Amino acid sequence: MKYLSFFASGLPTWGVVSGDYALAIGLVDGAPSTLRQAMSDKSDLASLGALAPRLPLADIEYLPVIPDPDKIICVGLNYEEHRKETGRAVVGHPTLFTRFANVQVGQGRPLLRPKESIEFDYEGELALVIGKGGRSIRKEDALSHIAGYACYNDGSIRDWQRHTSQFVPGKNFIGTGAFGPWLVTPDEVGPLDNLQIETRLNGETVQKSTLGHMIFDIPTIIAYCSTFTRLEVGDVIVTGTPGGVGMKREPPLWMKAGDVVEVEIDRVGLLRNPVEDAA
Amino acid sequence: MKYLSFFASGLPTWGVVSGDYALAIGLVDGAPSTLRQAMSDKSDLASLGALAPRLPLADIEYLPVIPDPDKIICVGLNYEEHRKETGRAVVGHPTLFTRFANVQVGQGRPLLRPKESIEFDYEGELALVIGKGGRSIRKEDALSHIAGYACYNDGSIRDWQRHTSQFVPGKNFIGTGAFGPWLVTPDEVGPLDNLQIETRLNGETVQKSTLGHMIFDIPTIIAYCSTFTRLEVGDVIVTGTPGGVGMKREPPLWMKAGDVVEVEIDRVGLLRNPVEDAA
Repeated sequence: MKYLSFFASGLPTWGVVSGDYALAIGLVDGAPSTLRQAMSDKSDLASLGALAPRLPLADIEYLPVIPDPDKIICVGLNYEEHRKETGRAVVGHPTLFTRFANVQVGQGRPLLRPKESIEFDYEGELALVIGKGGRSIRKEDALSHIAGYACYNDGSIRDWQRHTSQFVPGKNFIGTGAFGPWLVTPDEVGPLDNLQIETRLNGETVQKSTLGHMIFDIPTIIAYCSTFTRLEVGDVIVTGTPGGVGMKREPPLWMKAGDVVEVEIDRVGLLRNPVEDAA
Repeated sequence: MKYLSFFASGLPTWGVVSGDYALAIGLVDGAPSTLRQAMSDKSDLASLGALAPRLPLADIEYLPVIPDPDKIICVGLNYEEHRKETGRAVVGHPTLFTRFANVQVGQGRPLLRPKESIEFDYEGELALVIGKGGRSIRKEDALSHIAGYACYNDGSIRDWQRHTSQFVPGKNFIGTGAFGPWLVTPDEVGPLDNLQIETRLNGETVQKSTLGHMIFDIPTIIAYCSTFTRLEVGDVIVTGTPGGVGMKREPPLWMKAGDVVEVEIDRVGLLRNPVEDAA
């Protein structure tokens, strides 16, 4: 099953993918109005889906998969090749920073380069969404807390990320994080380790790895995060980027207006966004 | 005016302080149900207050001043004495990290030392709450965006804060941040620079400074944050702690069950919390 959030007739809603169509379940009378709420409610999707308007996928305006998560936790430096290229030390725990929900854009929507910087860098990543909340989740139980997977472009303003020791400002410019196109349930994705993740800028491959190359695997990340916080339904965890970021190229490769950036993960999807200058 | 959030008859509500009483405005028919919502609605407080139940302050169970902020942005290393004691480099911008709303407790509620660590440290700080949202706020306009001030204890799990370069895990254990007792409007607080901030552990003064000793002043912090994000009504900015933290004492001074910790700021209030072990 693939879930998605989008606009229909100008209103934010959600639904599921059925072939080349989106079934706009959120528009059905009595249905939960957001995907996050639907995940909590455990709605009867089959009966709601039968009543839902069908909209061609090609025509819809996508929202971020979860437009309103309670938390977005990002893992930095989680592929060895990327850790090495940044010159950061080996650490014994996941490196975590956060994003606010207002940074996010959906499939096809422009990523925004702020006027304060030219150092707008791509980071292709696998995101997961929590489907069952919990605290102190054990590694062996962690996968059962995942609702599904999506692509994420953890777009970063590098100079602002390095203003101080903390990454927050460079990771929280509005419109710099792309999340889509949809959430794919774990049964459809299957085992992750051999799945390829690739980032392309204007058609050229700039990052390429497999998900099995993560330093801290997903059960470890979930167990670690749920030690200090309670993970809630709809929380987003973004699992880190492979080597090849633009900042470490010679000369550096920055995203700019007119570019098209893609993050593609086998069995998960292809997230494509143009780049524009922020107003 | 002093605003506060609290439980009345087991339900979360909000109100204003009137002498030794809380006027439970949130319980009046048709009133906004949370303080954050009331700040957006610009409710007619005078007429609602006249209808509100009066509850003795001594009897109420406080909530965090804003229990449900969209964002909590914390400034690290914002007093020179604290920067020096941590050995961190001088930087040209505020050092920012974030907290999730579920870390917060109100006046009088226990701060929780997690079972994963004994390194539970106090950090007395001034918090401000945004009353008028905005992006790219100019320094000269920044003060007009502030709804008021409160005390904050930015309780920190030091070993988890130092697991990696990023502070997030050590700043986000549930129940480690105290926020209260109330929000005092700027007209009642007056000029900040000469106001004393003091943290006491079991009655002994452990931090003492004046607010004028901040490295980055409040207009600078608001301008910087609003460059990358949009500040919303109810957002909380915690402005950093003076020197004297427990981690840098010899031997280190950690908070433990049975302790009482206080953060007192002239003209703002006295925030007092016992410490307990998390369940």
